[in-house]
Amino acid sequence: MTAPKKVVLAYSGGLDTSIILKWLQTEYGCEVVTFTADLGQGEELEPAREKALMLGIRPENIYIEDVREEFVRDFVFPMFRANTVYEGQYLLGTSIARPLISKRLVEIAHETGADAVAHGATGKGNDQVRFELAAYALDPDIKVIAPWREWDLSSRTKLLEFAEQNQIPIAKNKRGEAPFSVDANLLHTSSEGRVLEDPAEEAPDYVMQRVTPVEQAPDAPEFIEIGFEQGDAVSIDGERLSPATILTRLNELGGKHGIGVLDLVENRFVGMKSRGVYETPGGTILLEAHRGIEQITLDSGSGHLKDSLMPRYAELIYNGFWFSPEREMLQALIDKSQEHVTGTVRLKLYKGVARTVARWSDHSLYSEAHVTFEDDAGAYDQKDAAGFIRLNALRLKLLATRARRLK
Amino acid sequence: MTAPKKVVLAYSGGLDTSIILKWLQTEYGCEVVTFTADLGQGEELEPAREKALMLGIRPENIYIEDVREEFVRDFVFPMFRANTVYEGQYLLGTSIARPLISKRLVEIAHETGADAVAHGATGKGNDQVRFELAAYALDPDIKVIAPWREWDLSSRTKLLEFAEQNQIPIAKNKRGEAPFSVDANLLHTSSEGRVLEDPAEEAPDYVMQRVTPVEQAPDAPEFIEIGFEQGDAVSIDGERLSPATILTRLNELGGKHGIGVLDLVENRFVGMKSRGVYETPGGTILLEAHRGIEQITLDSGSGHLKDSLMPRYAELIYNGFWFSPEREMLQALIDKSQEHVTGTVRLKLYKGVARTVARWSDHSLYSEAHVTFEDDAGAYDQKDAAGFIRLNALRLKLLATRARRLK
Amino acid sequence: MTAPKKVVLAYSGGLDTSIILKWLQTEYGCEVVTFTADLGQGEELEPAREKALMLGIRPENIYIEDVREEFVRDFVFPMFRANTVYEGQYLLGTSIARPLISKRLVEIAHETGADAVAHGATGKGNDQVRFELAAYALDPDIKVIAPWREWDLSSRTKLLEFAEQNQIPIAKNKRGEAPFSVDANLLHTSSEGRVLEDPAEEAPDYVMQRVTPVEQAPDAPEFIEIGFEQGDAVSIDGERLSPATILTRLNELGGKHGIGVLDLVENRFVGMKSRGVYETPGGTILLEAHRGIEQITLDSGSGHLKDSLMPRYAELIYNGFWFSPEREMLQALIDKSQEHVTGTVRLKLYKGVARTVARWSDHSLYSEAHVTFEDDAGAYDQKDAAGFIRLNALRLKLLATRARRLK
Amino acid sequence: MTAPKKVVLAYSGGLDTSIILKWLQTEYGCEVVTFTADLGQGEELEPAREKALMLGIRPENIYIEDVREEFVRDFVFPMFRANTVYEGQYLLGTSIARPLISKRLVEIAHETGADAVAHGATGKGNDQVRFELAAYALDPDIKVIAPWREWDLSSRTKLLEFAEQNQIPIAKNKRGEAPFSVDANLLHTSSEGRVLEDPAEEAPDYVMQRVTPVEQAPDAPEFIEIGFEQGDAVSIDGERLSPATILTRLNELGGKHGIGVLDLVENRFVGMKSRGVYETPGGTILLEAHRGIEQITLDSGSGHLKDSLMPRYAELIYNGFWFSPEREMLQALIDKSQEHVTGTVRLKLYKGVARTVARWSDHSLYSEAHVTFEDDAGAYDQKDAAGFIRLNALRLKLLATRARRLK
Repeated sequence: MTAPKKVVLAYSGGLDTSIILKWLQTEYGCEVVTFTADLGQGEELEPAREKALMLGIRPENIYIEDVREEFVRDFVFPMFRANTVYEGQYLLGTSIARPLISKRLVEIAHETGADAVAHGATGKGNDQVRFELAAYALDPDIKVIAPWREWDLSSRTKLLEFAEQNQIPIAKNKRGEAPFSVDANLLHTSSEGRVLEDPAEEAPDYVMQRVTPVEQAPDAPEFIEIGFEQGDAVSIDGERLSPATILTRLNELGGKHGIGVLDLVENRFVGMKSRGVYETPGGTILLEAHRGIEQITLDSGSGHLKDSLMPRYAELIYNGFWFSPEREMLQALIDKSQEHVTGTVRLKLYKGVARTVARWSDHSLYSEAHVTFEDDAGAYDQKDAAGFIRLNALRLKLLATRARRLK
Repeated sequence: MTAPKKVVLAYSGGLDTSIILKWLQTEYGCEVVTFTADLGQGEELEPAREKALMLGIRPENIYIEDVREEFVRDFVFPMFRANTVYEGQYLLGTSIARPLISKRLVEIAHETGADAVAHGATGKGNDQVRFELAAYALDPDIKVIAPWREWDLSSRTKLLEFAEQNQIPIAKNKRGEAPFSVDANLLHTSSEGRVLEDPAEEAPDYVMQRVTPVEQAPDAPEFIEIGFEQGDAVSIDGERLSPATILTRLNELGGKHGIGVLDLVENRFVGMKSRGVYETPGGTILLEAHRGIEQITLDSGSGHLKDSLMPRYAELIYNGFWFSPEREMLQALIDKSQEHVTGTVRLKLYKGVARTVARWSDHSLYSEAHVTFEDDAGAYDQKDAAGFIRLNALRLKLLATRARRLK
Repeated sequence: MTAPKKVVLAYSGGLDTSIILKWLQTEYGCEVVTFTADLGQGEELEPAREKALMLGIRPENIYIEDVREEFVRDFVFPMFRANTVYEGQYLLGTSIARPLISKRLVEIAHETGADAVAHGATGKGNDQVRFELAAYALDPDIKVIAPWREWDLSSRTKLLEFAEQNQIPIAKNKRGEAPFSVDANLLHTSSEGRVLEDPAEEAPDYVMQRVTPVEQAPDAPEFIEIGFEQGDAVSIDGERLSPATILTRLNELGGKHGIGVLDLVENRFVGMKSRGVYETPGGTILLEAHRGIEQITLDSGSGHLKDSLMPRYAELIYNGFWFSPEREMLQALIDKSQEHVTGTVRLKLYKGVARTVARWSDHSLYSEAHVTFEDDAGAYDQKDAAGFIRLNALRLKLLATRARRLK
Repeated sequence: MTAPKKVVLAYSGGLDTSIILKWLQTEYGCEVVTFTADLGQGEELEPAREKALMLGIRPENIYIEDVREEFVRDFVFPMFRANTVYEGQYLLGTSIARPLISKRLVEIAHETGADAVAHGATGKGNDQVRFELAAYALDPDIKVIAPWREWDLSSRTKLLEFAEQNQIPIAKNKRGEAPFSVDANLLHTSSEGRVLEDPAEEAPDYVMQRVTPVEQAPDAPEFIEIGFEQGDAVSIDGERLSPATILTRLNELGGKHGIGVLDLVENRFVGMKSRGVYETPGGTILLEAHRGIEQITLDSGSGHLKDSLMPRYAELIYNGFWFSPEREMLQALIDKSQEHVTGTVRLKLYKGVARTVARWSDHSLYSEAHVTFEDDAGAYDQKDAAGFIRLNALRLKLLATRARRLK
């Protein structure tokens, strides 16, 4: 790889990415463009601008953007249409944010004439894969720089030395090691590393960033109604809201009621296991609600097909293949299934649990006429079941006859 | 079908199966053998013996058996090895009990020289299918009688008339319609029908049979440790227990803490949707714990393969294909995966939630040496990730190059 | 079911459907509308009109249509996009034609105000399922009449008697039993029954209707080039042709060279096995060619995903679920994959084999630059493979370490 | 990686692996053990011994073994139980041989106290992955040396220079570049590279190593009968033979009749496409025969489940994951299905085609009693089909009712 001339850096404004910024300047002598995104992580972005300026970035090379609506509309919602969980439990809060960041990095590279992008993910994790696969899928010729895999700043001490040598301000609370590492966006907050590294040890309470400990959650349940159209949430309690606003509200509700905490050991794409604590308050409610509305609006053929492909779809997202043809093929299948996933779900939020208690829809396939214990007025002829069972059994009978014959 | 001469009836001792008993005697003039199983439904079985005697069944034709250990060991536990849920949520508590009952019905038929078996499931539900597919798979020549599909006792009034005409005692509380229908065994209690028929209406509190309403659950969490060997639970808090004893204890714990309530609209195999309320206190804890131990003892290849096949396995059980070669093939695959699923999971039970908080095992694949944020002493070379990503990206780059070329 | 007033009958003009026509008139006293389709079965359709008139059908109730283009464009080609084979080998020639016939039956019912449709498939086969599932999916209130399941004309003798009593002309060669039963359309000819019923006996030569016995095929190979656009064949040897014309030409070519004969025992949806001899000359060439063009235009992610879902898609078509949401979901996925399946395949046709020998495309993903044994000018860094392998191996190493530790 | 002290090299005796042998000695100063396997590639192995001795290998460090029976019994046959083809067509002849070689390399390393293994696969192909994943799965601490990824002998000229400098004899015909590269074993011969690199160009005739050009194949067909037990071939024309002997005979038969030639562009695991010509005469017959016996001995549930998992199983083998838990899980599933795959298949071999023409078995599930067009004596009640269809249609009717309601 020839040296990059101009690099777009995913820049948070924090210490680590500031060190990367400076390292790119010194190591490659290249121009740096910074991209700072508001994904709903709950931090002020303007300090990132000042810091970038201070580190010598030209004003026109500083990109700060609120991408929350795009994030929820084009990434989170499509993923939730599939009731996506990785390894049975993880709602993919980090995984789903990375492709969006890469997409903007590459777009900004094209706008600014940069030939490279850079990110602050380490060489052990999944995020490097997600950033880079997305970048290469969007621009096959882009250079990707992953300083953590390249430099020799392999200890906290060396990093701080580099910062001091390069006049990078170090916040007081950044002198020591953080007890764990955090990633946050509108969908979730994840914590991992250090105090969480032993999966036989319970996560300490102070790890929780966002969700009220369930013991302190309100003693009274709260009921909400989420409206859906074609698989996406469009309203809460009858109020029509934008995608990001819906997720924000659900986060508040879920956080208040202690909903959406997960302590998980998962399999990383790079081959090792890691332990994380995930807080996904709004997402957990949304998943339950989406399942609730699908219960009455999807038939079994559609639902079972979706269910059987979900693990593969989740794996693709987890592994960083959002911008791959197979993810898009699965999305086409999933989206096709959502045409009638329209209606309303009523949920009870209480002490860590979001539970569907009622659901209704003009698009409902539920037929009280068929299922009733009462007289069904001929909607269903119970005698049909006899033939249905006998033909389903025919193959099993032939197997049993063979077994008997060969005994 | 020629008329049956001797029929083994799945007999609960209740009004409905007593009516069936008498109907079989009068309709077919056949000898009836009764089979009453203790599956952990929590009812006395001896009254069934007295009632059967009173209805003219010969003592040697009355089979009453405690099958709880067999139920958990040979049906529930194998199913839980797959983390089985139907349509994303249902733990299959009714589905998994039916094949065991059919198996004993057929075995008793062989022991007693009976040529037919009979059950009390209606023509609208799944249970008829489960009973009958299992019976035919175990004996291709057995006759199966499903009175609800045959007789003309199509209303409550007609049933009660038949009972009265035939001196079948009617308990006072059975005169009126029950507000909903219940099925119970050691794994779960399900409620459906009548007051639950409108899925837009919340289930009334009195539907709950087994699980403490979460508002009334204890205000202090409880922690337990479940030990696993090769995928099956073998101990609670260090005490080695039999399969049925483990599930019984977990039911007590779960019930106390309000765990395992599900309000679901599901797709029946016979083509209609139905709404049920399921209480699965112990099973819900067991599922969470099994996932917890798999997190550290299964590698991603095994886990993802299992996950992707689980929906199909669940569908087979739900649809009544327990005794089918494809269920046995999947079981062979699943059981193969469980050889190292051995270790201990610590769970927190509180207000409706069972949550894994720690897990450990001699069989753990978790490698702190690899995952650590600290110096890993060369366990992992971050530079390997660069090649890993580049080859995973190669295909995506070629796609992007084509897209650019064709633009 | 109340008696039908007006029935649209799938009418071939042959003896059996003429008997059905008359039986419908006499049994139900209903008006009959006939629908006779040219699906490429190679028979004159006008005699069907005369016969229908003779049997008392009013001229405006006789529908005769050439649906060959619709058949290939909307049914055959979409199916071939998935490289569909049932049970590893069968190209679904009969299965794919049934939904089209049902679709027109239902449409004609709506046009003519009929309340029922009727078909001539027996109660043992798959075709009854395909006809009826399609009809119900398109009109939930339509009545379907399947005379073979209803009447008591259970022997050849009774059928002929009925025909004679009702002045239905009987062709001389229809007096005796045919030695086997035939279904034909533009995609294939199938033969089954009677002389073919014992799968341990070779099919006699006279079964073959359409394909030259391979021993008599030309001694010189023939080469052809098939052009594809977005997954569908559009030209032969550079000549742009309509879908039905392409399949017709390929049938001629395949038939001449002895291509596309299959002797198969398959599993019917109704639970039994049956043996058939299938001749699919053009389809066999088309399948090979489609695979050939996909080889260079599909990436592995798309191709492997398609491949893994094909058996399910084939099963849906075989079982009669063409007009089901899950088939449409899979179609959306498959069609998404075909956007770049454009290019040309050269095939060698010789003595029963159609084999791809070359393929090229503007949409090709094949990169000689990458794969070459020669100097690749840096297109590919072989050292990347080391990291790629090491991270793919990490999980396996951790497993092996555990195995060693526990020994 | 610390330098290896003793290396077991997969040694063919040819020029390339002789250069590797010498390079290992000179580059690492390590002791070399050679392993030369007879996998049925059709070459004398003793010259490899002489050459190894001449290159300074100690006699006790030279391992030459006939592993043909193990190859077919433990690798080829298990794979054929699944009717395995990669990307719809490739019978995986190269892929399936690599894990066996790695297994012996690692075993010999353990026997001889070697700390490393080495192979002669390049950094662009799949074989490096297969060798190395297998080695790491069997010994997590083994070192693997892949000289082609390490050295700078990047051109033919440099290689020959190195050979000359190190007194490695160069056969006359090895001076120039071979026009294509060949790999062979008992299952297949593959050719790729150079003259085959352009997939738009037909492969020249001289590429074919093993299969008679179909134009020159005999003008008379030949019929054979292959006997199977539990999924594996055990006899030809009634003569019981060992696994390797069966495959050898089928190779002779297939080769004679021009059977088993495939010209394919495939997707390599490392991300690029490559074009190969594969000759798999015996394997092609075996695949057809195995399908033939499964037709009558497997029920649809087993067969369809297997079919749906085959692509994943094939991908695992192609990608080098033979010694992975998920391959073993799938194998457990597949093997379970083969318990009754016992019987005999009759095939016609003629001009490039092996076609099943008859099959019979004591384990057959084919029931002429059920399928017959004649009177079936009550084996099957056609009226059952009505109920079967109506319940299968119920869901579709509810969908159609919704569609009509919402119009």
